[in-house]
Amino acid sequence: MSRAYNFSPGPSTLPESVLHQVRDTLLEYGNAGASIVEISHRGPEFLDIAARAEADLRALLSIPDDYAVLFLPGGATTQQALLPLNFAAPGQRADYVLTGHWGQVATKQARPYVDLNIAASSEAGGYRSIPPASEWRLSADAAYVHVTASETIHGVEFRPAAPGGHPFPDTGDVPLFADFSSSIASEPIDVSRFGAIYAGAQKNLGPVGIGVVIVRRELLERAGQPRADIFDYRLQLAAESMLNTPPTWNWYVAGLTFRWMLDEGGVEVFARRNEAKAKALYAAVDASGGFYRNDVDPAVRSRMNVPFLLSDPALDDAFLARAHDAGLIGLKGHRVVGGMRASIYNAMPLQGVEALVAFMHDFQRRHG
Amino acid sequence: MSRAYNFSPGPSTLPESVLHQVRDTLLEYGNAGASIVEISHRGPEFLDIAARAEADLRALLSIPDDYAVLFLPGGATTQQALLPLNFAAPGQRADYVLTGHWGQVATKQARPYVDLNIAASSEAGGYRSIPPASEWRLSADAAYVHVTASETIHGVEFRPAAPGGHPFPDTGDVPLFADFSSSIASEPIDVSRFGAIYAGAQKNLGPVGIGVVIVRRELLERAGQPRADIFDYRLQLAAESMLNTPPTWNWYVAGLTFRWMLDEGGVEVFARRNEAKAKALYAAVDASGGFYRNDVDPAVRSRMNVPFLLSDPALDDAFLARAHDAGLIGLKGHRVVGGMRASIYNAMPLQGVEALVAFMHDFQRRHG
Repeated sequence: MSRAYNFSPGPSTLPESVLHQVRDTLLEYGNAGASIVEISHRGPEFLDIAARAEADLRALLSIPDDYAVLFLPGGATTQQALLPLNFAAPGQRADYVLTGHWGQVATKQARPYVDLNIAASSEAGGYRSIPPASEWRLSADAAYVHVTASETIHGVEFRPAAPGGHPFPDTGDVPLFADFSSSIASEPIDVSRFGAIYAGAQKNLGPVGIGVVIVRRELLERAGQPRADIFDYRLQLAAESMLNTPPTWNWYVAGLTFRWMLDEGGVEVFARRNEAKAKALYAAVDASGGFYRNDVDPAVRSRMNVPFLLSDPALDDAFLARAHDAGLIGLKGHRVVGGMRASIYNAMPLQGVEALVAFMHDFQRRHG
Repeated sequence: MSRAYNFSPGPSTLPESVLHQVRDTLLEYGNAGASIVEISHRGPEFLDIAARAEADLRALLSIPDDYAVLFLPGGATTQQALLPLNFAAPGQRADYVLTGHWGQVATKQARPYVDLNIAASSEAGGYRSIPPASEWRLSADAAYVHVTASETIHGVEFRPAAPGGHPFPDTGDVPLFADFSSSIASEPIDVSRFGAIYAGAQKNLGPVGIGVVIVRRELLERAGQPRADIFDYRLQLAAESMLNTPPTWNWYVAGLTFRWMLDEGGVEVFARRNEAKAKALYAAVDASGGFYRNDVDPAVRSRMNVPFLLSDPALDDAFLARAHDAGLIGLKGHRVVGGMRASIYNAMPLQGVEALVAFMHDFQRRHG
């Protein structure tokens, strides 16, 4: 088949223009005499790529100067382990707010290192909502409060800007840490509200295999706990994220993706596009008379990941097969929740969502 | 310039045929409808890639069945932190043998977690030799003994197969752990001699951004020490190295490189080629009457990384500039030792080394 509309949750679709640039430089990057994946991370070509990537990400997200930016191998899960190691004293209290699967995963990474307090959780309700901030049991002496800005599997998102949406809480002097893997750069965010923002790149920032950490510099003065050099954010920052050989190719592709987002008009433009995409898709689900269903509290429905169930799960396989035939891939839901999921990050055009909506109508007409 | 001979130490040169395959599949992989970097790691295409990569690596290195293979994000340094976390009790003795810079780096990752014993070191002599095994002060109760099979910066290599070369020691019941980043797959190795072998892929195994760990399964029964799930080798094995989203593109390119090595005839063929390449280059250094110099004990000179000094360091810049003009790149030595370094991994053809040798002769004729 030719290139399909790819709704995979991550790894996920990349802008075709980025892929073309990658392809065109794959054997020779500029005058380097070699591919990006072959040249030294300490040579002038890659240092230029790294500097531009940081500058572009800072411009894209309006990152204040008192925040450091790290580019690190792996994804968000690794950072979920490194955050307590760098910012909590051994066994210090840390507050976690669970609004889906990835918040749970974050606790598994942190539990060996902190006195972990579940300050709030919507697990009992199947992760379909965000507990009201008034019910959060925050600890005054916590090292930090951790939230997941957008839950990729359960499709629940903090919506600070939306009317009626759930804002990020004011945590006072306790820094707020947020996993932004699924929604970073999808709309403007006020970075200064957070102590640290982290994200695996493979959703909204481009390629798999690299993660980004944006952290308020003063937090790097915390002692944290005994850890290997390679796990030390301070040392990584001093080494410009090159304490060891970094995933250069992935960093390069992320940088191309940042540039693409800026060229498209930046996060304000994507916020509008994402709103339109999500609105179209949820409308199709809601107007299906129950043939399709999404049970998330409408005020906190994710704009990035739209999980939906078919009323008859026996039709799931047929739905996926016919969707594939129609050039729509990556729609199988996560095993934790089943059903379908359409991930519609920045690189998914409105036409892709329109094609999916048309397919859903057609599939319902045939099977409803 | 067109593609040069690239002597970079890592990231390093890839087989051109591998790069062509990567380029040809960059927008669409087979019938997937998307690029490898865009599709799910849990979909049939990538699961097939992952299975083939492991099978090919097992065939290439004759890995016994009682050894597990992990593919993990990052490079060797991350594994240097994870080895003590997985295989040593908190504060347990661990023996390290230092034969160069990377052995030192390994101690920085392990020191927070173990009672670190430098069992032997050639640091006092500038890392130009390997201390004889009879002088190693090994601990009977050590969790493991750690060595660096080939030191990328200092150019010192254990040579178990070479006449007069330094074999790996017999550590009895204490498992031997080895950083094989620079020399894995460069010649046959007896995996069963080791408790664990690890390597960043960006030297002999292909692309940057992924590492390989080969570990005797029974060691995975050790409790290790408190650690995040993501740092747990056992959990990674149970999840087939997909506890989190893995660096799929890098894994794919590594797999293509394994396949290329098998197609070329396997490690026996590369052992002969590498021997010939190293012999030619060291001969050029040694026959230069001191214009070029390598001070490493000839019995343990690395076949992979050939550092050499010009007798007049004032000529260094001219050497690098003229080499670049001649299509020879990546020759600048590491700042720790200065001078030059030619990394001549499996993907560097003999013709590349011959071109370098010819250039060195010519440069000496003009400047000697």
